[in-house]
Amino acid sequence: MGLPNHFELTATDEAARTGLLGTPHGVVRTPAFMPVGTAGAMKSVHWRDVRDTGTDIVLGNTYHLMLRPGAERIAALGGLQRFTGWNGPMLTDSGGFQVMSLSDLRKIDENAVTFRSHIDGVKVELSPERSIEVQRLLGADIAMQLDECVRLPATPGDIERAMRLSVRWAERSRRAFEAAPPGYMLFGIVQGGDVPALRSASACALVDIGFHGYAIGGLAVGEPQSVMLEMIERTVPHLPEDRPRYLMGVGTPEDLLEAVKRGIDMFDCVLPTRNGRHGVAFTRFGAINLRNARHADDPRPLDEQSSWPSTRDIPRAYLHHLVKSGEALGAMLLSEINIAYYQRLMQDVRAAISRRTFPDFLEQTRTEWARGDIAAAG
Amino acid sequence: MGLPNHFELTATDEAARTGLLGTPHGVVRTPAFMPVGTAGAMKSVHWRDVRDTGTDIVLGNTYHLMLRPGAERIAALGGLQRFTGWNGPMLTDSGGFQVMSLSDLRKIDENAVTFRSHIDGVKVELSPERSIEVQRLLGADIAMQLDECVRLPATPGDIERAMRLSVRWAERSRRAFEAAPPGYMLFGIVQGGDVPALRSASACALVDIGFHGYAIGGLAVGEPQSVMLEMIERTVPHLPEDRPRYLMGVGTPEDLLEAVKRGIDMFDCVLPTRNGRHGVAFTRFGAINLRNARHADDPRPLDEQSSWPSTRDIPRAYLHHLVKSGEALGAMLLSEINIAYYQRLMQDVRAAISRRTFPDFLEQTRTEWARGDIAAAG
Repeated sequence: MGLPNHFELTATDEAARTGLLGTPHGVVRTPAFMPVGTAGAMKSVHWRDVRDTGTDIVLGNTYHLMLRPGAERIAALGGLQRFTGWNGPMLTDSGGFQVMSLSDLRKIDENAVTFRSHIDGVKVELSPERSIEVQRLLGADIAMQLDECVRLPATPGDIERAMRLSVRWAERSRRAFEAAPPGYMLFGIVQGGDVPALRSASACALVDIGFHGYAIGGLAVGEPQSVMLEMIERTVPHLPEDRPRYLMGVGTPEDLLEAVKRGIDMFDCVLPTRNGRHGVAFTRFGAINLRNARHADDPRPLDEQSSWPSTRDIPRAYLHHLVKSGEALGAMLLSEINIAYYQRLMQDVRAAISRRTFPDFLEQTRTEWARGDIAAAG
Repeated sequence: MGLPNHFELTATDEAARTGLLGTPHGVVRTPAFMPVGTAGAMKSVHWRDVRDTGTDIVLGNTYHLMLRPGAERIAALGGLQRFTGWNGPMLTDSGGFQVMSLSDLRKIDENAVTFRSHIDGVKVELSPERSIEVQRLLGADIAMQLDECVRLPATPGDIERAMRLSVRWAERSRRAFEAAPPGYMLFGIVQGGDVPALRSASACALVDIGFHGYAIGGLAVGEPQSVMLEMIERTVPHLPEDRPRYLMGVGTPEDLLEAVKRGIDMFDCVLPTRNGRHGVAFTRFGAINLRNARHADDPRPLDEQSSWPSTRDIPRAYLHHLVKSGEALGAMLLSEINIAYYQRLMQDVRAAISRRTFPDFLEQTRTEWARGDIAAAG
């Protein structure tokens, strides 16, 4: 393997783990949730407020940033952390996933994926080497290998072909990363769809190559939660105990707890900000749709016991009004409220693992969600 | 006149004045700029950040709020200050101006203006009495009389008819306001278009009725700046020295200084937030269009001497990227940057008047604006 380890496990509770991941821009407490700052911005949230939610690390999208404003430009401006003013740890994806979902006329061959930009139609080639180069230019603390992610359901043949290609690209990514300065990290990505044998083959091949950490990709792409959890269970035993494990693009608060229970350390998802823009709040009482008329006259906050000021102090009636009126402030408040909820959940998860009470915590949290929101006022 | 005075002049420099206006929700330092929180929200700015810019008082739009979420609902929720969480001084307009500009099928007669809501087409009648009732329900620290504002150019006959109607509505507004608890204020609105004799007739009639303060309305509605300034000069001598004077819907930073020079104490305008949403920043160097490609690679902030963190620390290249990408964060940052600039300008204006150096300050500020933005980088 040969790559230095920057991850320190500090406690375990059955398969659940808590630890510290050192990066050039600061320490990340795990299990960690990474909000997604797509195109160099957290949608509708100030960076100063992202930090205040307890976020240690954020995710930036290579695909968006390489097209606009461009990786070379961001490098000349001192890297993504300085460009945005976030200044904390940042992980970038490889660009591959969004090439598949956003661009036109994409073509994959052994060498690279070629596509047309969804912004201006310019033809772009993204090879494993170029993906690493772009992520290095962006200044990512953690870079991801380029992979091919197959949308499920898919045939075992298609899944295996993409997985084998991803392993070859992993080797090339690892070589391309060799010039990176100390402290920066590269994660490999386990593929293999919903086929357990392919998942374990992928994991073993990646561990043979050796990475700073290991991601599980190609999940939360249309399969039932039970399949996702089974694939995690089939993959984790093949990953080294002492390296961070990152479940990509997941998920709901419940997904996060189920995955932590199975040994996952890191997550990213657009759900807190996307649902915030659509009028939905994540809370101790589950997901709450602020568009619902029952909130129109309700002076009570979303959760009077929350430690996040906007969750604790702002009347539901006001949030309802903002959402119904299409005011930008509605998306702003609900996005920060949701990120704060996710981060508070991760903080409680870490505390429960440290105290070895994670199974109890999981049960209590599920019970609160199942009880649902407080009854309508008056 | 008979209405108690809550305004205290603390210094004058020629016609320019600085003072303190006491309201039930706090003291307002004048000259004061009121950002506009149209429909119960400052567009793209958190209330906590509005306060941090040095804003003492904000404006809410009666027309929007009476239609959605409704004045009775806001009253039941404890008033607009509590509903929004702003909790500071608030002035509401009468609703008349936006009935004219936003609604369909409006009809004005002696009694009231009748219109259809632009949201759901419901027919609504707004009389002087109902306007005061709505503003009292909203909990405005300062309410405005209902008036009829004529868009210029207009014939002297049309201007006079609207002005006379506005005076009769002023009397009715004053009577309707009599039940308001102590400390809350009602301002009359001088009309009269671009006809000096009508302006003075309007001012004298309003002073005879007696108000807590006096607004100059019907300007910045299409006439040249010179006409606006002349109308101010023709009106101010007829207003009592000891009462606050409010120039409605104005304006650019230059308009504000010219009006302060002529004895105006209060302003409101959507310009800082509207221009912020359109990619324009107000700075010491004048207005700067961040869409301009010359900012794309510029690591320098808008103004490294600014005391506002976003103005001082954020690279122009990042603001350019956000604006070009249509990211909500671009509007958020530029709106707060612009409100902060306006408030800093007002703070400097108040200090200059206190030191009796306002003419020098006006000259220096104009010179800086005229010099224009710093040259492109590189």
